[in-house]
Amino acid sequence: MAEEKNAAKGAGDLQYIRPGDIERRSFAIITEELGDFPLPAAHAPVVKRVIHTTADFDYARNLAFSPDAVERGLEALRAGACLVTDTNMALAGVSKPALQALGCTARCFMAEPDVAEEAGRRGLTRAVVSMERAARLPGPLIFAVGNAPTALIRLCELIQEGAVSPALVVGAPVGFVNVVESKELLLRTPAPYIAALGRKGGSTVAAAVCNALLYQAWGRRV
Amino acid sequence: MAEEKNAAKGAGDLQYIRPGDIERRSFAIITEELGDFPLPAAHAPVVKRVIHTTADFDYARNLAFSPDAVERGLEALRAGACLVTDTNMALAGVSKPALQALGCTARCFMAEPDVAEEAGRRGLTRAVVSMERAARLPGPLIFAVGNAPTALIRLCELIQEGAVSPALVVGAPVGFVNVVESKELLLRTPAPYIAALGRKGGSTVAAAVCNALLYQAWGRRV
Repeated sequence: MAEEKNAAKGAGDLQYIRPGDIERRSFAIITEELGDFPLPAAHAPVVKRVIHTTADFDYARNLAFSPDAVERGLEALRAGACLVTDTNMALAGVSKPALQALGCTARCFMAEPDVAEEAGRRGLTRAVVSMERAARLPGPLIFAVGNAPTALIRLCELIQEGAVSPALVVGAPVGFVNVVESKELLLRTPAPYIAALGRKGGSTVAAAVCNALLYQAWGRRV
Repeated sequence: MAEEKNAAKGAGDLQYIRPGDIERRSFAIITEELGDFPLPAAHAPVVKRVIHTTADFDYARNLAFSPDAVERGLEALRAGACLVTDTNMALAGVSKPALQALGCTARCFMAEPDVAEEAGRRGLTRAVVSMERAARLPGPLIFAVGNAPTALIRLCELIQEGAVSPALVVGAPVGFVNVVESKELLLRTPAPYIAALGRKGGSTVAAAVCNALLYQAWGRRV
């Protein structure tokens, strides 16, 4: 028993901390460590939530916002937007209570059987076919791409063709092949964007950006 | 039309790259950039998959393995292990085809209504209650914690009490409060572990570690 207590020293105290308290303390630490890093007020909740999700301060520099991105995103969420993700993982990470409170919905087409069938037939990725389907949804639409550069590339084409006019595109595919290029394409479209430049990103990053906006639109305090 | 083509320059070629090709090219880039970084052969697939998932080379230094971790993990997966995650996001990220091919299962208790009820009644996090429930599952068990330090702390206590003997613990909570401490607790248990030391980690990291082992047990080539 003594050995057990010793091995788990401190654990008894640690486990009783509430998630809300952990989050407040975490944001205080992030704010402190960011110091006088120049962060526009509108961007700060997004940047801090991404750092909270990744523990990676690179995102203070990596996240790029079009001038109207936060405003357009909040406006869409308050109008009951549909949030489209490129992975079920990002979909799982988006706050369901916030979506519900705002009358918003969230969709991911990746795992739908006929998407795989169509992708196989046309020699495309499922991500590409998913974006084509999502583009036909009624708006306002927010796209959150956290994984597949092919999804973001196809989405940019659809925007350029005038086939879809997203209220906001969260561009955060991650990786080494066509990822940087896909984000450069996004910055050349007319769509409002929040993009994780460079190689970094991911489903957790895409979901964190969405949640930062969802919480703000919902009026939840950090 | 000319303007559209210009704006989406190169996109037409980029979107036809298959996910399998992207993955192979990505791993080749990661291997090249790691250069002569000293990576044990057994650890390399895990480390590279985490870098592939995050585009963050810090994980080459941050990932710690107990001596038998990979071997015990593969052994458990080949014996039809149950993989327990602390978030539905990590659960969504684990390869379903690999789980199915190996006869393995995956579980997450976080969203179960009676877990929230019990957590509220006892003044604990849902993550703590989730780990207690998971500890009662028949083995072999692999735990993958990518978010909640409280989940990892409670799991370490259960291990020290002899209430559960995981085949492997993937310890990758992320953040600023009790996260580093929770991983230090894990390293003091007798359980085989793969841990993302420091503040970094996350659901994608936990899922990537699991997938690296799942693919290897399944015989899937990178």
